[in-house]
Amino acid sequence: MNGAESLVRTLLANGVDTCFANPGTSEMHFVAALDRVPGIRCVLGLQENVVTGMADGYYRVLRRPAATLLHCGPGLSNGLANLHNARRAESGIVNIVGDHATAHRPFDSPLTADVTALAATVSASVCTPRSTQQLGQDTALAVATARKHPGQITTLILPADISWSEGGIESAGVAIARPAPLDPHSIEVARRMLTSGKRCLLLVGNSAAALDGIRLSHAIAERTGADVMGSSLVAALPRGRGVPALPRVPYPVDVAVERLAAYEAVILINCPPPVGFFGYPGKPSLLCHPHASLHTLSRADQDGIEALRHLAEALGVDKNTAWTSGEQALPRELALPQGEPTPEKLDMALAALLPEDAIIVDESITFSNGLTTTGAVAHPYDHLIITGGAIGGGMPVATGAAVASDRDRRVVNLQADGSAAYTLQALWTQAREKLPCTTILLNNRRYNILLGEYRNVGAVPGPTAMSMLDLGNPDIGWADLARSLGVEAVRVATMEACCEALAASFASDRPYLIELMI
Amino acid sequence: MNGAESLVRTLLANGVDTCFANPGTSEMHFVAALDRVPGIRCVLGLQENVVTGMADGYYRVLRRPAATLLHCGPGLSNGLANLHNARRAESGIVNIVGDHATAHRPFDSPLTADVTALAATVSASVCTPRSTQQLGQDTALAVATARKHPGQITTLILPADISWSEGGIESAGVAIARPAPLDPHSIEVARRMLTSGKRCLLLVGNSAAALDGIRLSHAIAERTGADVMGSSLVAALPRGRGVPALPRVPYPVDVAVERLAAYEAVILINCPPPVGFFGYPGKPSLLCHPHASLHTLSRADQDGIEALRHLAEALGVDKNTAWTSGEQALPRELALPQGEPTPEKLDMALAALLPEDAIIVDESITFSNGLTTTGAVAHPYDHLIITGGAIGGGMPVATGAAVASDRDRRVVNLQADGSAAYTLQALWTQAREKLPCTTILLNNRRYNILLGEYRNVGAVPGPTAMSMLDLGNPDIGWADLARSLGVEAVRVATMEACCEALAASFASDRPYLIELMI
Repeated sequence: MNGAESLVRTLLANGVDTCFANPGTSEMHFVAALDRVPGIRCVLGLQENVVTGMADGYYRVLRRPAATLLHCGPGLSNGLANLHNARRAESGIVNIVGDHATAHRPFDSPLTADVTALAATVSASVCTPRSTQQLGQDTALAVATARKHPGQITTLILPADISWSEGGIESAGVAIARPAPLDPHSIEVARRMLTSGKRCLLLVGNSAAALDGIRLSHAIAERTGADVMGSSLVAALPRGRGVPALPRVPYPVDVAVERLAAYEAVILINCPPPVGFFGYPGKPSLLCHPHASLHTLSRADQDGIEALRHLAEALGVDKNTAWTSGEQALPRELALPQGEPTPEKLDMALAALLPEDAIIVDESITFSNGLTTTGAVAHPYDHLIITGGAIGGGMPVATGAAVASDRDRRVVNLQADGSAAYTLQALWTQAREKLPCTTILLNNRRYNILLGEYRNVGAVPGPTAMSMLDLGNPDIGWADLARSLGVEAVRVATMEACCEALAASFASDRPYLIELMI
Repeated sequence: MNGAESLVRTLLANGVDTCFANPGTSEMHFVAALDRVPGIRCVLGLQENVVTGMADGYYRVLRRPAATLLHCGPGLSNGLANLHNARRAESGIVNIVGDHATAHRPFDSPLTADVTALAATVSASVCTPRSTQQLGQDTALAVATARKHPGQITTLILPADISWSEGGIESAGVAIARPAPLDPHSIEVARRMLTSGKRCLLLVGNSAAALDGIRLSHAIAERTGADVMGSSLVAALPRGRGVPALPRVPYPVDVAVERLAAYEAVILINCPPPVGFFGYPGKPSLLCHPHASLHTLSRADQDGIEALRHLAEALGVDKNTAWTSGEQALPRELALPQGEPTPEKLDMALAALLPEDAIIVDESITFSNGLTTTGAVAHPYDHLIITGGAIGGGMPVATGAAVASDRDRRVVNLQADGSAAYTLQALWTQAREKLPCTTILLNNRRYNILLGEYRNVGAVPGPTAMSMLDLGNPDIGWADLARSLGVEAVRVATMEACCEALAASFASDRPYLIELMI
């Protein structure tokens, strides 16, 4: 078999059965091998940042990596922003980047670029197989690395000749490394902190913020008088009726500093110390009190939930408490909101209408109240945010999440218009794959978050600033745009019409875009 | 004044008066300074690959760099593919990439990325000013580097605190380095080659392929019996009535090898040896005959036209011949094409209808005959191609070219649909800036070039391959999409309707998209 076929067979043997792709000339042998060897589902994105964002959303739902197929340096470049987000989300992804044939590369033909340097900016490992014989083994290793705890981005650079030559060898499964062992001392330090009388905060990071971790944190907090918060980088947070709330560290620096000021000790579970998104003149980078003690209970490469279990045990927390605490009252009958759209009313609408086992992908930016009502009383769902701050993640992540759940779960994408414009091509993939994605396109015709930031530095924006912050002139017709890409769509300006469109969308099994004029 | 203001003033003092932008939080002080200090035209792109592609198109028309404004690592990442194309076009660009405040950076907040590594993949120089006082001088140096011969991409990484702190100093113009001196020996070698009786080819590269360089090459060829071709990377080629033809080295390897087989000597004027775009099993990378003598008359950093002038003199070419040769017959009355669209008919339509002093941006990929008729008999125009092979260059380059010509020249963009989908957001900027861009959107609903490449490796594409190569299901409604972004548009299926739409578009001063069903 040729190299390409050994690559396909090795991916399958190692549990990778989905490939998000935008191929080019140098990947044609791989495409041909995908044709010959059945078993891998290929999903096309019209631009690579859609491709990589889909792989991120896929991992967040299944906790299993997909492959991406990208074309040379520029193809990888186009996908880097959502790989950046995926890296911050600790999503496992196996990038396959086709490149020039080994003998052709030194000639520096037009498409030649420094693929290794580009890949290294987002990847835990970058590998260029040195021979066709080696390709299978390198692929198996790349998948094993991507599947580690936490998920890693690995990039396999595939010279065309390694792919087209004969001599490929399928490589069987490589054992996936277990999380790094826990440190009993670290658990003991946390126990002492929590029982010292100091005001303590448990800060729960990404992989620990699964249902078990959230319940354990709350049980420990209940026992010790500590508080619980989620780090700003939780990639997929379980929320809804019966799930204890895990409020995030607030985004505005002043609010965050005020909220965290009271804590004398902060216990970090699979997350770094809380820091602001940006630095501002005269404001701190570290958000907790400068004299607060910081303690890492578990690092990102350790099993934070297991660490919490040990900590709960050391504190004598009742196991039953640990597993049932935080249950909340069943929801009251929710009234549907009316009139002009507000973040609170959109929250109420979703709280009332969200179907069971949904996924919310939240890139609502300034039009958001944090979905406090939905988070508390809706049917349990997973809440996905844009972890790395690179806008344009929402629609691709929503698309990939829908692929991962094999059309079984409704995906609702709260999507700011400025960010949507980055990767609007994702709508086409939603139409092509007939995915149950409901996009609520929040059309305010401006980069509203930047207008706020501008006011912080320069009073009233003048015409030059507005030429860069205003998205009107011309207004984008988002419903029309969605339809041109094959997605059914409607434009609404009231919450009555929005609720009606939501209900219609949730009753269908196809993608739908609701352009909400705000 | 603060750093941001010194940056704006220094850009202006050094001849940069246009900024293609997509700003973020860390650039707000720069945006505020652009508001306070008048003189820089800011043009917003909805995604950074539009921003950088516009800067490329701008340089190709004016031979003067614009600035770009990009937000942190992911903002730069999004724009890298068109910076790759710009680097291959030898376009001068000054990237300004906002980054975290110096003191904030070590905290590795979510948006933190390796900006330097990303920038280095496309930039001739990357600089992070070490103080606010230093910023003006570093900016002046970056502009001078961008303005060198040939144009360079320079990246200035701007930590937010360097921008917001007081103490900025405007820096006056830095002298722009002259092209490297010519080597008289190299001219003598070329003279001997051309008079040796060997069959010679003059291969004319990017900066030498201006009108003077083309005329001189043809005069030399006429005198010596040599042939003349253009390298594959000519960023803006003068064509049309009265301009001697400069046929490019063909894209298909077999055709190129056959075309070049006869030449015993190849004289390179500001270009590398001719190489294939991709390597293929059993085919050469170097396209000229393996025994051909290669000689570099002038390097990229030398003045190739001056070298040609010296060579012409050494050969005793009559100066008058050098400036008038190649004049062609005035055009006959051209009939407008009818019926089903073909590349040849589209060529005929443009030959007949193209207005004076137009710019054609050609990303037509497989639907092209090289515009042989237009190139020979239309009003003289500049022909811009996608130099680096990263698709998605066409619409942004067209937009930037129209900005550069200050709405004075009609820009016609021959645009393949698959490539258009990469950067379709450029249409919105065309509408916002009211640019006279006519996009001929060639809608064939597939990655046609890849289908050809696939057939070369794997016979008939099966369903998996087609899921990655076919762009139907759903068909994109390009005219509807353009309208949703504010651009007037029409869908046509015959050449009669296409010609009518072209005439209507050329009579207007606004952007227009013609969706040509092919």
